[in-house]
Formats: sequence, structure tokens, C-alpha cells
Amino acid sequence: MQEMQNTQMEIAEAARQMKLESPNVAATSLETRNAALMAAKEALATHADEIFAANAADLAAADEAGVAPAVKNRLKFDQHKLDDVIAGIDDTAKLPDPVGAVLLHRELDEGLLLKRIACPIGVIGVIFEARPDALVQISTLCLKSGNCSILKGGSETARTNKVLFDLIHDAAVSAGMPSACMLQVEAREDIGKLLACDGSVDLLIPRGSNAFVRYIMDNTRIPVMGHADGICHIYVDESADLDVAIPVIVDAKTQYTAACNAVETLLVHRAIAPELLPRLAEACESAGIELRGDDAVQATISCKPATDEDWATEYLDLILSIKVVDDIDEAITHINRYGSHHTDAIMAEDDAAAEHFMQLVDSAGVYRNCSTRFADGFRYGFGAEVGISTSKLHARGPVGLEGLVTYKYEIEGHGHIVGDYASGKRSFHFRDL
Amino acid sequence: MQEMQNTQMEIAEAARQMKLESPNVAATSLETRNAALMAAKEALATHADEIFAANAADLAAADEAGVAPAVKNRLKFDQHKLDDVIAGIDDTAKLPDPVGAVLLHRELDEGLLLKRIACPIGVIGVIFEARPDALVQISTLCLKSGNCSILKGGSETARTNKVLFDLIHDAAVSAGMPSACMLQVEAREDIGKLLACDGSVDLLIPRGSNAFVRYIMDNTRIPVMGHADGICHIYVDESADLDVAIPVIVDAKTQYTAACNAVETLLVHRAIAPELLPRLAEACESAGIELRGDDAVQATISCKPATDEDWATEYLDLILSIKVVDDIDEAITHINRYGSHHTDAIMAEDDAAAEHFMQLVDSAGVYRNCSTRFADGFRYGFGAEVGISTSKLHARGPVGLEGLVTYKYEIEGHGHIVGDYASGKRSFHFRDL
Repeated sequence: MQEMQNTQMEIAEAARQMKLESPNVAATSLETRNAALMAAKEALATHADEIFAANAADLAAADEAGVAPAVKNRLKFDQHKLDDVIAGIDDTAKLPDPVGAVLLHRELDEGLLLKRIACPIGVIGVIFEARPDALVQISTLCLKSGNCSILKGGSETARTNKVLFDLIHDAAVSAGMPSACMLQVEAREDIGKLLACDGSVDLLIPRGSNAFVRYIMDNTRIPVMGHADGICHIYVDESADLDVAIPVIVDAKTQYTAACNAVETLLVHRAIAPELLPRLAEACESAGIELRGDDAVQATISCKPATDEDWATEYLDLILSIKVVDDIDEAITHINRYGSHHTDAIMAEDDAAAEHFMQLVDSAGVYRNCSTRFADGFRYGFGAEVGISTSKLHARGPVGLEGLVTYKYEIEGHGHIVGDYASGKRSFHFRDL
Repeated sequence: MQEMQNTQMEIAEAARQMKLESPNVAATSLETRNAALMAAKEALATHADEIFAANAADLAAADEAGVAPAVKNRLKFDQHKLDDVIAGIDDTAKLPDPVGAVLLHRELDEGLLLKRIACPIGVIGVIFEARPDALVQISTLCLKSGNCSILKGGSETARTNKVLFDLIHDAAVSAGMPSACMLQVEAREDIGKLLACDGSVDLLIPRGSNAFVRYIMDNTRIPVMGHADGICHIYVDESADLDVAIPVIVDAKTQYTAACNAVETLLVHRAIAPELLPRLAEACESAGIELRGDDAVQATISCKPATDEDWATEYLDLILSIKVVDDIDEAITHINRYGSHHTDAIMAEDDAAAEHFMQLVDSAGVYRNCSTRFADGFRYGFGAEVGISTSKLHARGPVGLEGLVTYKYEIEGHGHIVGDYASGKRSFHFRDL
């Protein structure tokens, strides 16, 4: 069925069909959706050899193409990763139903009842990097939330993706989900066609490099959830405890340097710079971090110069730019100007300074005395993460299942007409139930 | 100050400045924001003559331009409308603070506290029709929610808009709001410049004709909240009580024919068509409604033919298209295909049919046995309405104050680093407070 869709049907037509079927997917019971997850888990465990064989072929092709070891590690799908995604499916199955909750229940007038009810978004397109575990995570989150998903994974793991997709799709259908609940897109040239499917696709979630996400955002009318840059800051206030601040800075830079929530720029209050900078330089040297500083920093420690370009750069590397500021407001202004509104932290013992910073920094995450690396759905206790959003509309910050639902308003009446309220014959009394 | 901004500063630069100032506007207290509303109310009442004089000049110009009486009525700003907007400001002041609510409070680990806190969106651009009362409503909702607003009103009421804007802006500033909280855009050619202000403007709310809203949606990268078409349906099930259905249909068509929530297409179950159609035809004739039907309808009553184009047309006029369907699922499929996902209703006494319809129709509002005209923020008891959204992201349906806020995540720690959790030295315990 899926193969037929991919070969005989244009993406646009397949997306249109999926859109028409999406209310039926949205109407499935929690029982059916959880059964689909259990069937998918079972299928993955039973067909492990098949998955590993496909992955071996992907890895061999990657070797031939001369893919770097770090990247190859992401492509790999072994028993360890299989165990992880199976544990993840178990966790997702245990999460409460994101669909059907009554968010508002109000009597507008006698016999006229308003409800706001959580419901799936509909058709979600996900374009993700070459990481087979991402396919399992995303597709099962969409199943759990009653959404149809269109999945385009990185082509370096196309063989693994295909086996995983077919196993999960067939398992879901065997558990009672409509066949249109999932669609795989395999060819890279189909991404452009997918981007043109406004009207059929309700939401796009792109994952991958900044340039790729930016390209998606700039080339579609479909709403996009995600983030491009992650230029995160740590500001060290004059009231900071350096025994707290220095390990946090090192963690935020080194714990996973290529992550979007790693720190890129350090802002240091002028009063504490003479004490902080030499100690920090020592700690960073041990950790292999290259420092780039403005004039004031260079006057205190030996480091490369930082230019205006540095303030706007997401290094994703063991490089940290440092700027000395005269006060907390200069730090806040710098962050709101150069940052990406992702996650920014203050190191401060002074409560008023911390409160001021957290109030005025316009980012999805504002932290005090802890590492920016905490910006993550699992670490927030969401149980599962769709991605991190720097948008202010819909979900912001780490996005769990609730980012995959919207709501609809239901009204039940008994022949109520607006004319009666306009004429004054009847009036609303608005009583929440 | 405002004049300086408009004449000497480009829109792009003014928006950039506003964006940098927006955290200060967001940080104002509820006391200050409500004081700004009270000062605005006072200023409008005190300067009524000035407002009416500007409006008289706008109306005289409209007369010269030969504007239609119905339109002229919207341009008019008299004592009655002034009383209305002043009552509206009072209502808005009484609404609970949309900002600062703690939406989630969780201990991630000992001493590591996560909060999700409601906060203003930031900079909101509103482009609205020539209705001076809209300027007052929108600007005061933005003040109440701590958002900066960029306001572009219809140029037919430019003089009235300018007086209203200056009064409200100066009153807000005198009450303690930062001057950058509001900006007026006066020239029509500045709309294009405003649309290019992604990066500075967080949200656009366009109001006006379908074509205009569609143009905005298609020509900006700024997220847009609103709706273009409003093709609303009523489906008359075989279980319908015609004494309920017929007055509802007439109300939904005639109570305010030009509204986006007026009904455009009627779908009738084949079994009830012979009984409904003659009675409906009579009621519609009395109400001055022109009927257009498919073949089955034309075989029962005398009316014009409806074509495929009719199903996709928002008449905004006293015209109703009618189609006979074989069952409820044909009605649902028709609505999901031709509708605009705005508001659709079923007339049915059968509970199962109503539930099926409300579950499967993919619209912001799904109603049973009442008029589609109820789709309105005031009628939902929201106290104030920004507009109606057919998007599934962020706010959907009638949007009140809560559509003007987002949230941020705050974490307070004591030197917590992610390395300790990755190594297994510490672990999360996720306890909601």
C-alpha cells in the first residue's frame, strides 16, 4: 500500500488523501492508539535482524561514501538503540491521552453548552536527520496523539528507515489504525513537493542543521515548529559565586558541544571579570575550549579577539566568545539582540538581579545558576520530545506531546439563534461548569 | 514622539526599536497596565469633541468619494460607539491578568525548579479595516496583555484613527507605560514594509476582506493569526427536528449576512429533504434568501442550480447553496473538503449522529442545534475578542486575551550541571509542586 502511494501517487495527492482521512485517525480511541504502540514495539523486537541487516547496508554505503566516524555513529542502529526506542515506546504508551481533554466547559445560557476539547492537529510533516531512532520516536508520538504523519528521514539511512517505517505502519494498521495514519517520503526531491502541500499538511517539524531548518522556514506556507539557530548565553553577574559559575559554564560548553542548547557566548560583569577570567581561562584550557574575547577580556587574559561576527555565531564547537559588560542591562540587551531566543542563563546570588534577568530576557528558557544544557523535553519531565521551538506561537521551548494537539469548540443547543440575543429577548449568563 | 517615528524613521527601524523595548513593556505591572486603560478611557471621554470632529472630516471625505451607506456606517464614530468602546475598556480592565500565571511548577531534582510562566508575545502588528472602534479595542487588549502593538487602520478613517491613537498612546505613557508600547502606521504603502519585519514583529493579525487577509498570509514570514474564508455549513440530519432547524438556518444566514460565521451551504439528508425543502423554501422566501440547489434539490423545489463553484464560495450575501447527501458521512466529507474549517453545525435529535459529526468535522467550531453565528469571542464569554482563527497552531476559533500571550520556562538551580545526570551521579525525580 505504502509503496503504491510512493510510486504511483504524487506527494500532493497522497497528502490530500491523508488530510481527508485525518479526522478518522483523530477519532481513534486511546485503546487503539496504545495498541498500535504495543504492536509496533513487538514488531521491532521480532524483526530486529531485518532492521540490523538494512542498517548494515546503510553503514557500508556510508563507509564507501567516506562519512566521518561521528556521523556514522548517528546512522548506526544496533541492539542498544533498539532497546532505547522500545523503552521509549513503553514510556509514550504510559503518557496520559493528549486528546479529548475538556479544557473549558461553560453554560452560555440555559441549554446552550460550550466545550473546548483537545484534539489532534491533523497531518504533521516531519523532516529529520539521518538517525533511525528519530523515525521511531516521531512516528510513535504522532500515533499516540492521533495525528497522521508524513516522514522524510535523512537518505543516508534510507534502507533502515524503510524497514522501520513498514514495521511500524503495518503494526499500527493491524492494531486498528487507518492505513492513512503514516506515509513515508523517500526521495530528497520530494521535500520541495511536501513544502508545497499547504492546505493538506497542518504543521511541519524540520530537524537538522541551521541552514536546513532555515531553508524549510523560508520556503513553505505551512506553519513550522522548531528552531534554526541556538545561540545561548551565560551572563555572570557581579554577585555570582564563581564556584557555581565556572563548572556550569564548562558543562554548558562541553557536555554536548554540538547541541543547540550549548552555550556560545559568555557575558561578564566588569566588576567580577578580574577574578573570573583567569580562573575560567584555566578551566577552559583543561577542557580544550578556545576563548575569544573583546578588548577588555584580552586585557585580562590571553585569548583570540572576538568580533561582531562572533556574537552572532553558533559555533557548535569548542569555542566560547566572551564580552565584558558594564551592568546587567547591557547583558540583557546584548542577549535580546544577538541571541536566538532559545535558552539563556544568569549566574547570580543576588535574587533581584536574577529576577530582573529572567523577566527581561526574551527567550524560551531563562535559567539561574544551572547549565543551559537542561533545555530538553526529557529533562523537563515531558517523557518525550518532539523538538525545541523558538517560536512564540503554539508551543515554545522543549515540546512534548501537547505540542501535537490543538482544540476545537463544541456547542450544543436546542434551536438557539443569535437573533434572540441581539434583540434582547435572551441574554448570556456564562457559568463555568 | 510618534510623529517623529513615522516621518523620520523607517517602519523597519521603528519595529526593531520596539522589539528591543518590548521586554520592558512585558515587565510592566498589572497595576500600570490597568491604569493605562483607565487613563485611555478618561482621555477618550474628555476629548470626545476632538474625536467627533476628526470623524466628521473622514465622513465628509467618504461622501465625496461616493462611499456606500453600509460602509459609511462602519466609518462613523459617534457618541453611541464611544460609549461602547468605553464600556469595552472597563470590561477589559476587569479581566484577570493574562500575564504571569504559573502554568507548570515542577521540581526536577533537589534544588532544581522548573516553572512555565505566561508572558506577552512581544510585538503584535494589527492591520484592520476602517472601523475606528477596532483601533480602541485592539490597542487596549494589547496594553492589557503587555504587548507592543503596531496599528495600521483603514485609511478611510485616517483622521479619526490618528486622534484615537494619540489619545490612547499619551494616556498609556502618562500612566507609566514605555513610549514604545504603541506605534501607528498611517500610509498604505507601509503595509509592505511591515510585512517584511520578521525578526521584529512576532505576530500579525490581519482583519478585513478574504482577499486582503489571504494577501497578508501569502506575503510575510511573520506568523499570522486570523482567517481568510468563512464557508460555514449546516447539515440537516434525517433525525432533525424541523421546528428547530429552519429558524436556525434562517438566523445563521440573515442575522448578519456579511459575517464570517454566517452559513453559506446547507447539506440535507436525502430522507428528510422532501419534508424540509418546501418548508425551508417558504421561510427563505420570506427572509429574502436566494436558494441554489443541486439536481435533487431542483427536483423538489424551484431554485437556481448550484455548481461546484458554489460549494467553494463565501457569498457574504443573501444566497444559500443546498446539496442533498445520502448520509452523514457524505456531509462530513463535503464539509472537510469545501469548508474553511471555521464553524459548522448539525441539526439532529439523534445523539450518536451529533457526536459522530462533531468528532469528525475538522473545524474550529462544531455545533449542534444552534446557529453558526454563535462563533464569537463575546458570545463565548471571553469578554473581548482579538479575532477568529482558523489556524490549528496557537489559538483556534474566537481568540480572547489568552491568544496574545505565550509562555517561557524558568529554571532555578544551585550550580546544577547536565554532566552529573549523564554520568548517573544524579537523577531527576520530577515532582509537580
